[in-house]
Amino acid sequence: MKFSPLFWPIKLRGNTLYILDETLLPQRLSYIKARTYQEAARAIKEMKTRAFGQVLLVFSTFLLVLKQTKGKNSVLPLLQKVAAALNSTRPTLPFKFLTDMVLAWAREGDVEKKINGFLELLKARRIQRAVQVSKYIQDKEAILTHCNISGELPLIGEFCRRQGKRIEFFVTETRPYMQGSRLTAWELKRAGFPVTLMTDGMVASIMAQNKITKVIVGADQLAQNGDVANKIGTYQIALVAKHFKIPFYALCPPQSKAKAGKDIKIEIRPDKELLEYEGIRLAPYGVRGFYPAFDITPKELIAKHFILNIFQPNTSSGRVGRTKGI
Amino acid sequence: MKFSPLFWPIKLRGNTLYILDETLLPQRLSYIKARTYQEAARAIKEMKTRAFGQVLLVFSTFLLVLKQTKGKNSVLPLLQKVAAALNSTRPTLPFKFLTDMVLAWAREGDVEKKINGFLELLKARRIQRAVQVSKYIQDKEAILTHCNISGELPLIGEFCRRQGKRIEFFVTETRPYMQGSRLTAWELKRAGFPVTLMTDGMVASIMAQNKITKVIVGADQLAQNGDVANKIGTYQIALVAKHFKIPFYALCPPQSKAKAGKDIKIEIRPDKELLEYEGIRLAPYGVRGFYPAFDITPKELIAKHFILNIFQPNTSSGRVGRTKGI
Repeated sequence: MKFSPLFWPIKLRGNTLYILDETLLPQRLSYIKARTYQEAARAIKEMKTRAFGQVLLVFSTFLLVLKQTKGKNSVLPLLQKVAAALNSTRPTLPFKFLTDMVLAWAREGDVEKKINGFLELLKARRIQRAVQVSKYIQDKEAILTHCNISGELPLIGEFCRRQGKRIEFFVTETRPYMQGSRLTAWELKRAGFPVTLMTDGMVASIMAQNKITKVIVGADQLAQNGDVANKIGTYQIALVAKHFKIPFYALCPPQSKAKAGKDIKIEIRPDKELLEYEGIRLAPYGVRGFYPAFDITPKELIAKHFILNIFQPNTSSGRVGRTKGI
Repeated sequence: MKFSPLFWPIKLRGNTLYILDETLLPQRLSYIKARTYQEAARAIKEMKTRAFGQVLLVFSTFLLVLKQTKGKNSVLPLLQKVAAALNSTRPTLPFKFLTDMVLAWAREGDVEKKINGFLELLKARRIQRAVQVSKYIQDKEAILTHCNISGELPLIGEFCRRQGKRIEFFVTETRPYMQGSRLTAWELKRAGFPVTLMTDGMVASIMAQNKITKVIVGADQLAQNGDVANKIGTYQIALVAKHFKIPFYALCPPQSKAKAGKDIKIEIRPDKELLEYEGIRLAPYGVRGFYPAFDITPKELIAKHFILNIFQPNTSSGRVGRTKGI
């Protein structure tokens, strides 16, 4: 099985963490070395890794520290320090849920084994989900995607290929951070799939030309009613897809505590990230920008949720309908 | 009356044409000097001016040549050369319609006066249209726009201001060429209006937050059934606006010969313009891009057409309904 580097972007080798530096993609595939938990926390703070990579880095940082303190007694106070350092990196991200999980395991004992077991489960569930999604795709489909699903899209494509299905991808740039262009188009091309890049404004035009058969996106948060929060721009793709009767699939993390989309707090990013690109000023001075990092896609627009059910081992997905809860 | 430099971007002073170099905006407000029709044609070819500026430059180039040959007999052969030079600049643009008009006037006599009269009419009609649109806007409205309407939006804003209405603008970047950011946000800010810049992907999100009360866009072509061709991205804004029941207005040129939107040929631009920005490679190598320059917005999504009826002096707008033709 060949994975996208984005599928598992953190590796622990010896006493060093290798963190895929996503900010250098697609120009350079290179890893940052972190030898202390402080260095790992800095990589999160500086957004060298994102989405699934951050989750993986949180767990991997504990593994690094546990490896370095092998055989020592009472590592709990140190692990608590690590948790505090990780939690303080990006205040709006729900790392505390993850670090609390690890601290609870540390109190029970066998923490290293439990972390490794959890990561194995996570990997297995993501692969299972890719298999499952691939079964919903027919030969000669053209899939439109937005932002980046941390390496799961090339994997879905790989399973389609094994099933003898020829598929192609249309990828939105995903302004302002260009994850679609820099990450998704890159990993899909690298995996050998036909990829066409388009601007975020071309969705309706391209769907009107019958070029798209499905939309597949990820999700940063899944509310209990089936609404999802994902990268800004997702909502209008879902609206336009609905208009053209094109099925819209969302690959979601486990449900959050939010009852509905309206309960999810949307991070507003500094407008500088919109007004400049790689140091070039794009906008006139004096103009303000507005940059909500995510938007909410209501459940009615989502044909199918593929949920990473890591807490319910017997199922790796759930279905959300209008009448049935998740 | 204070006009945006984009409202009338070509000026004839003495024996020189001053052409606003839109490619340098917003960093620099500067004019290219053209002293021959060949230099003027080159400015069109190199897209130093666009949209209304190109129309104006076609007429102004004839005026330049006529001024330079003042008192000479039989200028028609020279004007035919000028027409040929202008028509060969951008094969997909309908300049021939304009140059044929001028050549017909040249055959009739009094060509200089007729060109000047036509340009005066054009200016008057554009100002009248801005007044008319302003009457459809209430106090405290927030107007979303896309691409650039060649200086008419600040003028609409100016008339609103004179009527005591406080309005604000939300402007999409308009990837890939960034006319929204570089031109529209710039001219609106310059005219003293509150302007918020957003990416092309934020339309649904921002409308869902009830921040927008109207959409106003221009149009590059108006078909006889009321469908319009405008900058890529317009169609999905219209779809999303319809979903949120936000009125969508289109400022249109006179009707073309196209019966419906499907009869309008869409220019496909080189994908390099999408894959690079100001010399920076944005996309991974090996990925292809798709860049239709325009899309078609069907008439059903347009609440009101404001048509520049320069050929019907008694009316400066027309209404397109589902049952009524234009």
